[in-house]
Amino acid sequence: MLPWREIELELRSAADVAGALKRLAIRGAPLIGVAGAYGVALELAADPGPEALGRATTLLRDARPTAVNLARAVDRVRAAAFAAPAGEMASAARAAAEAIHAEEEAASAAMAAHGAVLLAGRRRLLTHCNSGALAGPGRGTALSVVAELADRGQLDGVIACEARPLLQGARLTVWELVKLGIAHELIVDAAAPGLIRTGAVDAVILGCDRVACNGDVANKVGTYGLALAASAAGIPFVVVGPTSSIDARAASGAEIAIEERGADEVRLALGKPLTLPGTRCRNPAFDVTPAELVTALVTERGVASPVSAESISALLG
Amino acid sequence: MLPWREIELELRSAADVAGALKRLAIRGAPLIGVAGAYGVALELAADPGPEALGRATTLLRDARPTAVNLARAVDRVRAAAFAAPAGEMASAARAAAEAIHAEEEAASAAMAAHGAVLLAGRRRLLTHCNSGALAGPGRGTALSVVAELADRGQLDGVIACEARPLLQGARLTVWELVKLGIAHELIVDAAAPGLIRTGAVDAVILGCDRVACNGDVANKVGTYGLALAASAAGIPFVVVGPTSSIDARAASGAEIAIEERGADEVRLALGKPLTLPGTRCRNPAFDVTPAELVTALVTERGVASPVSAESISALLG
Repeated sequence: MLPWREIELELRSAADVAGALKRLAIRGAPLIGVAGAYGVALELAADPGPEALGRATTLLRDARPTAVNLARAVDRVRAAAFAAPAGEMASAARAAAEAIHAEEEAASAAMAAHGAVLLAGRRRLLTHCNSGALAGPGRGTALSVVAELADRGQLDGVIACEARPLLQGARLTVWELVKLGIAHELIVDAAAPGLIRTGAVDAVILGCDRVACNGDVANKVGTYGLALAASAAGIPFVVVGPTSSIDARAASGAEIAIEERGADEVRLALGKPLTLPGTRCRNPAFDVTPAELVTALVTERGVASPVSAESISALLG
Repeated sequence: MLPWREIELELRSAADVAGALKRLAIRGAPLIGVAGAYGVALELAADPGPEALGRATTLLRDARPTAVNLARAVDRVRAAAFAAPAGEMASAARAAAEAIHAEEEAASAAMAAHGAVLLAGRRRLLTHCNSGALAGPGRGTALSVVAELADRGQLDGVIACEARPLLQGARLTVWELVKLGIAHELIVDAAAPGLIRTGAVDAVILGCDRVACNGDVANKVGTYGLALAASAAGIPFVVVGPTSSIDARAASGAEIAIEERGADEVRLALGKPLTLPGTRCRNPAFDVTPAELVTALVTERGVASPVSAESISALLG
């Protein structure tokens, strides 16, 4: 409903949470993890036994394929519940979910601080999709850095890409920037490379859905094109995400499965038909940006730059 | 109204034509030129004197800033009318407009033939915006090459970018590809670089709004990002346009003024609001792709490759 209406959803079960994840009512890698964790806790609160735990895990673990945070958070709550004495599964699950939530909030603040130091002097930023409070606990990931720079009086403004097909930039990032009181301009996604080429911004900053061990970044479709343009223009291309977005099982971006979503997202814009019905579409939700195009990866534990298997491994230390 | 309804407009004056150009009812660089030429002829047919000629020229010459074809065609018809004996201005203007039209039709067929030879064996193509019969006389520019390859049995299919904000890809190119019976898939613009990177297409082919003397190409916003992605993937990036699109007055792309259109094109999609009303927007209609990223420029006189001041000058002879 955003940016026009603000509505609170009450989710009462793992199925509620899984549904909200699938239809993107909850999105953004860190928030997906926190929601999945609470989803398991909710199910156990209603039915505190191993059956409910199995049901919740199955429902939630694969509700969204790309963000590694989801499976990791669900597995962590599941392990905590299993480890708890009988009768304490529900409270152990809730405590684990709350711990994940608190950790992600602290991570957001830490990323903001690290990123603001890194980007000091870069007063005009370009961002893509949504990486703020609607995507992550606290003030989110990349947008938490933007907000921190604004707090420090070091920001002139932000260019936000609309992020077709689902328009998270036009709908969510614009709404967040209004709330934050930060000057901004909206563009269609295709306009970004040309604007970057002509010197309209000093850096590109965005979140990530998943980072491979070598630093390849899976993020909202369009990210790779922005990275190419930033590299050609010689401006920093900065990815912000908590270490929980780093996938220890993916040696490189080639091992990250890219979610392909339904054709109607492309055929329509917020329900409005843009083309002939039945038109065949490709709709990859993400793309992969190779590590060599990423100037810096900002995490809650510090900054990896240049981005490589070595610098990431050193961060995870 | 396309792709849902097909409506014929009857334009009876230079003002009618200028209005149709401004609201993009007529678009595509070659077609803009032909329309401008007929616009002058129409005005003189109703009022065959130097006053009408001056009025028509003023109205039409600057109806759209980026395509050089428009000013050139209007000026050519104007010169023909001025050179004619009194009493024959109208017929001279009409003859000049018809000559321009016929030349552009022949150019489309010649570009198709040259491009098809160049791209033989590249069976999966990606295109942007619209460069077919709705953009140029005959079968247009880049899409005439696509159609020719299909006629020759050398095409598997086309990926079409939607071309936000005005969606000429989703609306016009999809409609043309359906009419041509060519297999196609539609994508959001931001998906193109990632698909190019993963090998989904064998070449990128598109039209141009204006080409500078050194081969820099001004074309629909998003073109530059596609060129970067094609270059990174090592596939040909082919621009198709008649020599009438080459601007002798622009030594390089830096001298091409980029039309910035209204914010509501970004805020809306076909009238549907996508963001908060009043959101500030940047809306460059075009971007500039440097010549070194263009593998080949296909014109009616042959192919410039590599694209440079020398190869273009050689083509123009």
